[in-house]
This record gives sequence, structure tokens and C-alpha cells, in this order.
Amino acid sequence: MCPDDLPSALSEPRSRAALPSVAIVGTTGAVGVELCACLEQRGFPLASLRLLASQRSAGREVAFAGRMLRVEVLDERSFEDVDLALFSAGASVSRQYAPLAVKAGAVVVDNSSAFRMNPDVPLVVPEINAAEIARHHGIIANPNCVAIIAVVALWPLQQAHAIRRVQACTYQAASGAGAAAMQELLASTGAYLAGETYARRVMKHPYAFNLFSHDAAINPATGYNGEEEKVMAETRKIMGLPELLVGVTCVRVPVLRAHAVALTVEFEERVSPEKVLGVLAVAPGVRVVDDRGANHFPMPNEASGQGDVLVGRIRTDVSDPSGRSVSLLVAGDQLLKGAALNAVQIAERLYSC
Amino acid sequence: MCPDDLPSALSEPRSRAALPSVAIVGTTGAVGVELCACLEQRGFPLASLRLLASQRSAGREVAFAGRMLRVEVLDERSFEDVDLALFSAGASVSRQYAPLAVKAGAVVVDNSSAFRMNPDVPLVVPEINAAEIARHHGIIANPNCVAIIAVVALWPLQQAHAIRRVQACTYQAASGAGAAAMQELLASTGAYLAGETYARRVMKHPYAFNLFSHDAAINPATGYNGEEEKVMAETRKIMGLPELLVGVTCVRVPVLRAHAVALTVEFEERVSPEKVLGVLAVAPGVRVVDDRGANHFPMPNEASGQGDVLVGRIRTDVSDPSGRSVSLLVAGDQLLKGAALNAVQIAERLYSC
Repeated sequence: MCPDDLPSALSEPRSRAALPSVAIVGTTGAVGVELCACLEQRGFPLASLRLLASQRSAGREVAFAGRMLRVEVLDERSFEDVDLALFSAGASVSRQYAPLAVKAGAVVVDNSSAFRMNPDVPLVVPEINAAEIARHHGIIANPNCVAIIAVVALWPLQQAHAIRRVQACTYQAASGAGAAAMQELLASTGAYLAGETYARRVMKHPYAFNLFSHDAAINPATGYNGEEEKVMAETRKIMGLPELLVGVTCVRVPVLRAHAVALTVEFEERVSPEKVLGVLAVAPGVRVVDDRGANHFPMPNEASGQGDVLVGRIRTDVSDPSGRSVSLLVAGDQLLKGAALNAVQIAERLYSC
Repeated sequence: MCPDDLPSALSEPRSRAALPSVAIVGTTGAVGVELCACLEQRGFPLASLRLLASQRSAGREVAFAGRMLRVEVLDERSFEDVDLALFSAGASVSRQYAPLAVKAGAVVVDNSSAFRMNPDVPLVVPEINAAEIARHHGIIANPNCVAIIAVVALWPLQQAHAIRRVQACTYQAASGAGAAAMQELLASTGAYLAGETYARRVMKHPYAFNLFSHDAAINPATGYNGEEEKVMAETRKIMGLPELLVGVTCVRVPVLRAHAVALTVEFEERVSPEKVLGVLAVAPGVRVVDDRGANHFPMPNEASGQGDVLVGRIRTDVSDPSGRSVSLLVAGDQLLKGAALNAVQIAERLYSC
């Protein structure tokens, strides 16, 4: 199946031996593809790259830095000689293999939800809490994509004016459910336009020109779904604000790869939209898109492929008579800042790139 | 162009002469088509039907009650012998022609925003304030589609437990921007899938697999757009609650014809989600879709073609420590209850159907 002349891992010359040997787990998934791209595009200094995936994807060839690498089957010995393992293959794979990677001596940056709320595991967005990285015990968790995109905008505001309460409604893209969900959106939409039926494989509900409440299981005690509970808990943990009031409604919309989030932020004191705009205009990882005259605000199509989170529609929430609430709209690439880019940024901090 | 044997208006036998003669203005628009369908499907008792449109659509043939009717050009004499005129051709047409229709003796049910906030004009959702119809001076306004869909769910709650504040994020379908916008969503999505470019004609922003803040002009004094201001003002007027606190974020999503709205309702007192569910389960015009186990909640594809507003995802908003806030998700057909059906329901009350 696989030509023998293809290396199973990229190996750099000996002079770079001090650089980390890197493995990606879940190479062929939507995030895995972007992990490879981010490492390459950002020139992440690595000694070797091992691409791991399930049996189904093993043997595929992936281009990296001008060479073709062969995808290997993930197994218990995959992490020998690996210094840094970037996991993005779901929580169950992380639960099984991340401890093995740590045991083998690797540091794991895990994109799944498996360890995020473990008190011993740093949950990191580098613009916010990069210092947390130093206290890791082998695993650093990459947060939920909505949480990342929201906190990149919320944190600079919190630094300037204490936040009391955050309410969010999401407009989440297909990519958050993986490459197969993106494919299902495209294929089912094509079938709709052709007047053909489409047999769903990934989503619980029809996706062409439709939207639905995020299909994570509902917690019967609260009525919130698992995605919403992740966003609420992780937002508090990343920002180090365990008492922050957060309420979220997560909705999946027929958009491909960038999430939008409508936020209403209640501060402890009155804060003008002009002040909010001023804070966000100089915030790291943020790009203000707020042209009222042109009706040009954050949109998924413009967030896609971008590392920055787009922020705009900044206005005082007229439904709060205290004048302490500001509404805004953010959009960020779910696969980049919401996943792969943030993971690579964590890795860069680990290795002081 | 138009065969002479086609009647320019449907005429019923003399025995039904006491029934109203009806005209539709904007017959060939997305709402106009549904107005015809609602009149026919609901068996609205009419003596004659005159179909009016701009020069561009004049001469088209429209099927109604088993006959073909010819669309006439709207002009100043179109309302002679008309008892009831259903307008859905935009605010400028309504401003120009609705007063002429009233002068000619017709009652106007106007789907545009032209007269909605005029204190002398009833703004009616029959389930809520049908009694307002009696105080009309010739014009009855049909509310904004988001406002209708939201208040159908909010009003029974207000009747049971006073509401203090409503916050809404919308997921608005193409149909709200008219038939051409629906066509643009379909055509631009088809072009995207085919890898072709698409030249926008209707929307300000690319629509295929994208979303954007509603493109109504932004009020520079508040930062809210015109759509949001309509929803906020009309919600208060329909419910007769001029002090109600309402904050809205309006977003256009790539869905064809049903709007969804995520609502957070703050009551004056604690209200459990079970109580909210109980109230909505017996509310007129509402259908509860709230199957947590199956993750089945209101969706545009299931709201489309339905007269009821779907309501679900009912839960206490955990971000309000007072326990007085409940979040929910609603979906309703923008063209039916959000427009044509509500207008015909008003007409039915006018004529005690």
C-alpha cells in the first residue's frame, strides 16, 4: 500500500537534534490537517514529525515542508522518542493514549475535552494565561473552540473593567463536528439543490439550509447541553474567574468553518462602547471589524483562514437599564484559533519559539 | 401578452355579494404568494380577488381556487370596489398606496413597517391583541416577522408571570429579505459548490455558507440596526408593555424561510422551566418541541410550512443568580406566521370568519 521510499516520519539533520520530535494524533481529521499546516506555516522548529491516525487513515500520504509523510497507525508504542504530542482525535482516544504519551516522556497538548476541567491540567489560551503552561504535569489542554473565540475578546475587557456576567448565543460551523460534518453539509446541500434525498451519516438533523440546537447530550438536571456546559466552565477556568456568571445557547448553523458568537457582557460598572472598542482595538489576537456605515461586521467567511478573532457590533445593551451591559459579535476560525492554531501557539510557548 | 379569456379578478356569484372584495398588493413577492395560498387554504370567504403588483410582474398568471388570475399593475385606481387590501410590497409602496386604498373605502392590512409605530394604527398578532383591530382607522399593521414569532411565545408567559426583560439573538432566514434573497441564497450556494464565482445582487455580503449581522442601517446613536429597533419597539407595542426591557441582536443565516430566535426571559419573580413549559404547552399558536432525550428542539426545517411557532430548549438561565431568567429557543415560518398567515388571521377577525 505504502511506497517504501516514503519516510514514516520527517527527520531533520543531526544539528537540529535538540529540537522537539513532534507527533500529531488525528492527523487526517479537520483539526489534524490544520495542525500540520500551522506547524509548517509558522515554521515550528521540530526535529521530526510523526503523523498518527486510526487504522482507517493509516498509509495515507501527507505533504509537509515539501516532503510526503506516511500516516502511521496509532498504537501504544507510537510515542517512543516523541517530545511533543498534539492530540486531536476525540476524548476517548486522548483518555487512552495521552497518559501513554506522557509516560513515554512526551508533553501532550490535547485538543479534546478529556482533561480540560482536571484541576491539575492547565487550560490555555496563550494571550490570556500562558503562564499556566509552566505548571503542567505532562498534559496541557486546548479549550473548546467557542470558549477560545469568546475569551480572546472577553479577556482584554476583563483586564480593563471587571466583568460580572456573560451571555452568549453561538452560530457554530460544521467544522466543530469534524471533517465528516463539513462534508455532510456540502453533500446534503448539493442534494437539496439537485432535488435529491440525502441520507444523514453524521448529524442528527438535516443540515442543508437548516440549523439546530447543538446536539451534545442535554444534562437533565440543568437543561444545558454538553457543549454549553463546556463553554461555561472553560470560560471561567481560562479567565481564572470561578465566580463569573456565564449563560450560553449553542446552535449549529450551516456555515463551514468559522464560528460566530453574539455576546452580551455585563460589567461591574458602566463601560461605554467607545471604551470597549478602544480596549479591543489594541488587544492581542483581536481584529476589530466594526464599520457601521458599510454594515460591515464580523462574518465567518472573513474569519475563515485568519488567526485573529474578529470583533464588532459593539453597543450598549439597551435592555439593561443600569447601562453596564455591552453587546458585541465575534467570529473566529474554529479550526485555527478555535483549535489547531491555539494548540501550536501553546507548543510555541512550551519551546519558547 | 395576457389572454383575454383570463379574468383580471376572481368574481363569486351574486349570492356572496356581501363578502369582501379583496386585493393583494405585492402578489408575486415571497409574502404575496403565501397570502394567496393562505386565503385559499383557509377558505377565506371573499367575493372577488384582485392581484396587484408592479409593472414588472403585471400580466403574470396566478392560480387561485382552481382558476387562473391575471396580475394587474398597481395604480391609483386599483382599489375601486375593494373592501380589504392586503399589502406586502415594501414600506414605500404602502406609504404611497395604502392611504389611497383607505380613501377608496378599503381596510388595509399592511405587512410593511410603514405604519406600525403610528399610535393610531393597531399592530396586531391575533392571539395577543385581536381587540386592537376594532380601533383601526383604515389601516391595521402586520408586525415584523421576528417580533411576531417571539411574542407568540412571550405573550402567554407574560399573562402567567410578568416579564421584566427580554434578550434575543436571531437566526433569520433569507425569506425575510424577499424572494430574490431566497433565490440568491440558492444560486450563490450552488455556485459555491460548483467552484464558480457568484455576483451578488440582493445581499450586501456573500451568503453561501456564511452569516452576517442584519443589513438594515445602523442607528449611529444606539448602534442598533433598523431591524433590531423594529423588533424591540414592536414587541413592546404588541404586548402593550411600553416599559418592557428588550435587547436584540439580529443575524441573517443561510436558511431559507423560517426564523429561529434564542430568547432569555427575565421574569419579575422566580419561574421554573416546568411552569414555562406548562404555560406554553396550552398556548395558542405554539407547539412545544422539547425532547431532551432525542435532542429534538425547534428547527427551521420543521417550522417551515407550519402555522405554529415551535418552542423548546426551555431551561433556567444559569447566568442569572436570582433564578428569575429562563432561556428558550423558538422557530417559526417567516412567510406564514411571520407575515402572510398573521395578516390573513387579522383579516379573518375583521370579517369574523
